[in-house]
Amino acid sequence: MNGEFPVRQASVRAHNLALVLRQVAGAPRPPSRADLAGSTGLTRATVSALVDDLVGGGLITEVGPAPRTGAGRPAVGLVLNGYGPAGLGLEINVDYLAGCVVDLTGTVIHRLVLHGDQRILGPRAVLDAVADLGARLRSEAAAAGRVVAGAALAVPGLVSGAGLVHRAPNLAWHDVDAAGALAGGPLGDLPLTIDNEANLAALAELHADGDGLDSFVYVSGEIGIGAGIVLHRTLFRGARGWSGELGHVCVRPDGPLCRCGALGCLEQYAGQEALLRDLPAGETGLARLRDDTALADSRLPAAGTSLGVALAGVVNMLDVDTVVLGGIFGPLTPWLAPAVEAELARRVLTSAWSPMTVRASALGAAAAAVGAAGAVIRDILAEPAEWLRP
Amino acid sequence: MNGEFPVRQASVRAHNLALVLRQVAGAPRPPSRADLAGSTGLTRATVSALVDDLVGGGLITEVGPAPRTGAGRPAVGLVLNGYGPAGLGLEINVDYLAGCVVDLTGTVIHRLVLHGDQRILGPRAVLDAVADLGARLRSEAAAAGRVVAGAALAVPGLVSGAGLVHRAPNLAWHDVDAAGALAGGPLGDLPLTIDNEANLAALAELHADGDGLDSFVYVSGEIGIGAGIVLHRTLFRGARGWSGELGHVCVRPDGPLCRCGALGCLEQYAGQEALLRDLPAGETGLARLRDDTALADSRLPAAGTSLGVALAGVVNMLDVDTVVLGGIFGPLTPWLAPAVEAELARRVLTSAWSPMTVRASALGAAAAAVGAAGAVIRDILAEPAEWLRP
Repeated sequence: MNGEFPVRQASVRAHNLALVLRQVAGAPRPPSRADLAGSTGLTRATVSALVDDLVGGGLITEVGPAPRTGAGRPAVGLVLNGYGPAGLGLEINVDYLAGCVVDLTGTVIHRLVLHGDQRILGPRAVLDAVADLGARLRSEAAAAGRVVAGAALAVPGLVSGAGLVHRAPNLAWHDVDAAGALAGGPLGDLPLTIDNEANLAALAELHADGDGLDSFVYVSGEIGIGAGIVLHRTLFRGARGWSGELGHVCVRPDGPLCRCGALGCLEQYAGQEALLRDLPAGETGLARLRDDTALADSRLPAAGTSLGVALAGVVNMLDVDTVVLGGIFGPLTPWLAPAVEAELARRVLTSAWSPMTVRASALGAAAAAVGAAGAVIRDILAEPAEWLRP
Repeated sequence: MNGEFPVRQASVRAHNLALVLRQVAGAPRPPSRADLAGSTGLTRATVSALVDDLVGGGLITEVGPAPRTGAGRPAVGLVLNGYGPAGLGLEINVDYLAGCVVDLTGTVIHRLVLHGDQRILGPRAVLDAVADLGARLRSEAAAAGRVVAGAALAVPGLVSGAGLVHRAPNLAWHDVDAAGALAGGPLGDLPLTIDNEANLAALAELHADGDGLDSFVYVSGEIGIGAGIVLHRTLFRGARGWSGELGHVCVRPDGPLCRCGALGCLEQYAGQEALLRDLPAGETGLARLRDDTALADSRLPAAGTSLGVALAGVVNMLDVDTVVLGGIFGPLTPWLAPAVEAELARRVLTSAWSPMTVRASALGAAAAAVGAAGAVIRDILAEPAEWLRP
């Protein structure tokens, strides 16, 4: 024995566990063990052993037996276990903190949003507050019989793989070790990843939409404006993971000064503070804008034009055919989309023969938190052997 | 016999031919058959049979034997055969046609550029002319003992996989079936691919640079301005193959009217016609700009600023760290680069901790033709079994 054989066996088992779990997750109706043997090509004995492991580990559960026509004992169906491990998604944004718990089936079972300007607190206080919010959601989940298996945090800035927030201009964060700060708090025992909020929201949009979306730019409208780029159903992170800074694409080279130090960035024309000029900040002002058609008509089309100018450049370079408007832009889409569409039609070369689609996000506010929790769940589903490991 | 075994054998041979050829192409000095057995893990008998096939097919050739210290018969070294199959690269641009023949080692052995405004001719006449240019180069190559194995054509527009030029705004081409038109001409017997000129020039730049470049935007400055995006040494084509339309990224929403129909596109500020305003068109005007420092100082920095504004948006979205200035921008880089760098430093979020590099293309004019010919060669090297097939 040279040790290689057991390793191979373990990796075959890991592969097959993931294969069976994927079949259960993707099936139109709960498959039986026999169905799984048929769809995977594995023997029924192998499938039964794998299913027993997945049931034992809380990842799938039996339902039925459903009434069946034909002979034989009715088969028990298998589904993802909504009471199995859950994912905790957290989001820090400029004027709110958000969190949610998502079960293995993708259902949001707890959700919490705390409005408040995060710029007046230092990074440490904000990170403590989001950890407390996460701990509260985790307790609620525990009270409802779920174990949170991992957490992901969305931040409005550029993040490195190790959880360092290099820069979040609208929070005025520079080189904040978010992962390190959270490791000592009430979530310190959980596996944690940190990612850009627009990236996570784009992934949430992709998975919320079923098979409808292939390649799109998700626009995250908040105080800042970010973008998540999905190409052929895969998140495009750029060369170093710092793609999608749509808010700092230039609309007018001699325009107003941006918080980033440059002139004429898109955020100065279409960010939340530009939209709410002379109105109350935050949710109050946004509600006013949504409810007062004359007010919306007077300022949103111009913001939409700026957004369209910036997005046309993006689409000319990246060649995607769909723009999804998320965050505060979602509910404002009826006012923004016509101007965005007009600029895309005018400026995108391919629009001559291949029209663009502009639509509101299916997810609404705090999409990034949902995307974060979903990322935890997708990790478990992709590598169930990791979760089942004793 | 169910027919599967011979197919498998053929595919193993194809794989091993490519493996051996890659080793020969990448070796720092000509490897012997024994060296190849060592580096591939194949038996010496297998390597010898594969080498015989590759030598017989004209893809590699023997050199040496070099004097050797130590015992035994001196070994014959193997190199790519510069007299083996060659690639024909062609380029249609707005004010010139170009072509070149590249041998298997990547050396340009014939080259031809014909200056002249292609807009005054229809697509059919331009395609006939480029086919004639290609036929002339092919004859020159034949006279020098090379067989052209395939051709690739670079065009300044959006191309579909089937060789349809959807749109080339600066040529005023719409839905031109370039592949169909060439099939009937003197190159009709050659395998032909058609691609965007900036994409092919970016690939040429990548391969000319050895291992120095990883992720960059290649900017092709001509009458139009295109871009080829390379991420982790792979060309990024976008969702449908129509990425990189940098010339139509907006610099100023109310700027001058572009040939594409939009206002304020980059081409109106930094395209060749903008740079040569009030100067003779084409090479004459460009030479004047290069030779007259006061003239260059008076107009190139402003063009560089516009280029920098557009590129900053691209870099904020795509996250690359290098910009390569090609085409007419290459020789003008000393005047353009400082302004481009200033805008990138001012506008790109990541520039705060990760400075950008802006440099001139290593290839000069007609880089796209070189890239096109190189693409033919890389296809042969990647799948030698296709070439060797009787």
